[in-house]
Amino acid sequence: MSRYIYADNAATTPVSEPVLEAMLPFLKEEYGNPSSIYQKGRAALAAIEHARVQTANALGCEPGEIYFTGCGSEADNWALKAAVMALAKKGKTHLITTVFEHHAILHTAQKLERLGCQVTYLPVSPEGLVDPADVAAAIRPETALVSVMYANNEIGTIQPIAEIGAICRERGVWFHTDAVQAVGNVEIDVKAQNIDMLSLSAHKFHGPKGVGALYLRRGIALPNLLDGGGQERGHRAGTENVASIVGLGRAIELACDPAAIARKREHLTPLRDRIIAAALELPHTRLNGDPVKRLPGTINLSFEGVEGESLLLMLDLNGIAASSGSACTSGSLDPSHVLLSLGLTHDVAHGSLRLSLAEDITEEEADYIIETIPTVVARLRAMSPLWEKIVKAEQ
Amino acid sequence: MSRYIYADNAATTPVSEPVLEAMLPFLKEEYGNPSSIYQKGRAALAAIEHARVQTANALGCEPGEIYFTGCGSEADNWALKAAVMALAKKGKTHLITTVFEHHAILHTAQKLERLGCQVTYLPVSPEGLVDPADVAAAIRPETALVSVMYANNEIGTIQPIAEIGAICRERGVWFHTDAVQAVGNVEIDVKAQNIDMLSLSAHKFHGPKGVGALYLRRGIALPNLLDGGGQERGHRAGTENVASIVGLGRAIELACDPAAIARKREHLTPLRDRIIAAALELPHTRLNGDPVKRLPGTINLSFEGVEGESLLLMLDLNGIAASSGSACTSGSLDPSHVLLSLGLTHDVAHGSLRLSLAEDITEEEADYIIETIPTVVARLRAMSPLWEKIVKAEQ
Ligand SMILES: Cc1ncc(COP(=O)(O)O)c(C=O)c1O
Ligand SMILES: Cc1ncc(COP(=O)(O)O)c(C=O)c1O
Repeated sequence: MSRYIYADNAATTPVSEPVLEAMLPFLKEEYGNPSSIYQKGRAALAAIEHARVQTANALGCEPGEIYFTGCGSEADNWALKAAVMALAKKGKTHLITTVFEHHAILHTAQKLERLGCQVTYLPVSPEGLVDPADVAAAIRPETALVSVMYANNEIGTIQPIAEIGAICRERGVWFHTDAVQAVGNVEIDVKAQNIDMLSLSAHKFHGPKGVGALYLRRGIALPNLLDGGGQERGHRAGTENVASIVGLGRAIELACDPAAIARKREHLTPLRDRIIAAALELPHTRLNGDPVKRLPGTINLSFEGVEGESLLLMLDLNGIAASSGSACTSGSLDPSHVLLSLGLTHDVAHGSLRLSLAEDITEEEADYIIETIPTVVARLRAMSPLWEKIVKAEQ
Repeated sequence: MSRYIYADNAATTPVSEPVLEAMLPFLKEEYGNPSSIYQKGRAALAAIEHARVQTANALGCEPGEIYFTGCGSEADNWALKAAVMALAKKGKTHLITTVFEHHAILHTAQKLERLGCQVTYLPVSPEGLVDPADVAAAIRPETALVSVMYANNEIGTIQPIAEIGAICRERGVWFHTDAVQAVGNVEIDVKAQNIDMLSLSAHKFHGPKGVGALYLRRGIALPNLLDGGGQERGHRAGTENVASIVGLGRAIELACDPAAIARKREHLTPLRDRIIAAALELPHTRLNGDPVKRLPGTINLSFEGVEGESLLLMLDLNGIAASSGSACTSGSLDPSHVLLSLGLTHDVAHGSLRLSLAEDITEEEADYIIETIPTVVARLRAMSPLWEKIVKAEQ
């Protein structure tokens, strides 16, 4: 078997060649510490400031509003913990988020709750959409922050971010969005969308793992999450990960070019929908998430009577790398909290599959996925006592 | 001028060739997310677990006691903030550290102080050594943690870590050491030295920037600093920086090989002492830090009547990259808190120079440094009104 289709780009993406090329000098001869005043230090500093400009251009903000971090999770932790800490002094101890955020938000919110913060977890519709009216209704005088993810990592639904941003701005509440899955897939303009804070992570758009960024609107003063040296204008300590920051800059420049976003959308949307339509011809199969308001490459399907882990392993044997939920929980046996939030039962949630396509997937590869899924699902169902029960109940 | 001597290895080091070679596959074809269950994911997971073994071997602990972080500062922040948070519930709200820690410790301690923690900042001797008796005397029933750096980043003094460890263990107090400057320079054995927590950072020993580790003795349960996904056995969220963790593992294996440490010490110590002796022939010049209990490659000198920044720039023009204090403050005009803690006046502290030698420095390069320093110092003193005053006062 020589075919290998990597269809787990929502988990992580390969570093692209131009990105690696941009990084390599900083893993070799340009090893200076950006805080040093001699030439090698200045070169490193100039490189990270260039990456800051590239990042700001991609989001529609100023370079001075970008802070590089060690990962997307750090940006999420920083935004939530620091916003709550900053506003607690003013008696604002209420946080609004959603039930189906990534764990970097959800577990942080739960920790803040244990420390005395009040948290509202907004529900989502069966299609995985947050209702802006729910956000408006949940805001109280003591609300410090609203945090709603831009696009969901498991089902790919895209939220009405601009509407939520407008509501928060009008009500004078800070608005954070975890845009880790959105960057490079949708056009973002933090100013037009009234976003105050935004998290991103390079490895989701062909940058390296272990580097992220927080956009923080000028005028919002947050305490640090990492205290220490004066890096990132005194707001995030630690010798800068120069090579990876340079990689992030190059990757976001390439991924967020409006033409690249349009090309990706136009190429992937029909392939995505073709795979979905083919899968939905199987009995007892459902698409999770809104059919239209979703990332161009993200597909999430539930096959009743199938066990998700087995499905992944069988697909792997057939040369397709996919996921059963978010990567960081795919080792666990708990059903996905995202799928449960849509109203799926444990059984159905257990039988689900996420395919997240790369922009360079071919028609032939999509055809291969379309051919393989029914075969694999049929084989697993043939061995499944649960499937037997489902079929019996129908007769 | 073709010569270039990088003598700022305490600020950062170049990634060595074998380290980059180990990293590259993980920046290219081995891009899997370690949490994914297909082959590429398992390969990434195996690679980080191998790095964990390499790191544990270097420190004399078990792999399960190593947690990878995004930098040395993150490890420091985690250790202090989490230890204080864990023990505050038991009424232990006192932290002991020293006046001359790295800012990643010092600024974290100051933040904890603002949040209600009591902090004792132990003084150091004029030679930059912490007295274990001072540690013993400072411990109170409510002491949660003692944090004393293994080796100072500016002056290179090596602290009596085993003695302090023994005291803390006997008194039932957790002991953390910031070993960012020590790893690869001295042999560390966390079990023999009774160390409970230890921070390190790869870019100080020819690994990449933006990756560190915290050793945490089994049995110590700390809350997370970064909440989210289940990475690092649930203790540090964020998709693992696979390539950099692999680089850290290879770098620590090479740097902490006892033969490598001995070779480095034997090669550098005489060169270091020759440079020091030559510099001390200049009038009004002092060595900062203990002459013997110091890192083999770290030299810190104060030249009265000289302005540190000018000294660095002149050395840079002469092909020598050095530092005036820790890198992350070398852009600032405040005199180094480390040098002030030794009792230096602001004026003297301002005229200081840190040279930190690489293991591959040659005799000729050391000679070049020895020739260049007096010329540069003489030229700066000739233009210095402060030096004029010093000379007049002597007549
Ligand atoms: C003693 C010491 N501690 C902590 C750090 C912080 O390490 P990092 O820059 O990797 O965060 C450094 C170096 O910058 C250091 O020398
Ligand atoms: C929506 C979302 N938020 C946050 C993260 C965390 O990013 P990182 O793994 O870089 O910490 C991820 C991916 O892992 C994600 O998909």
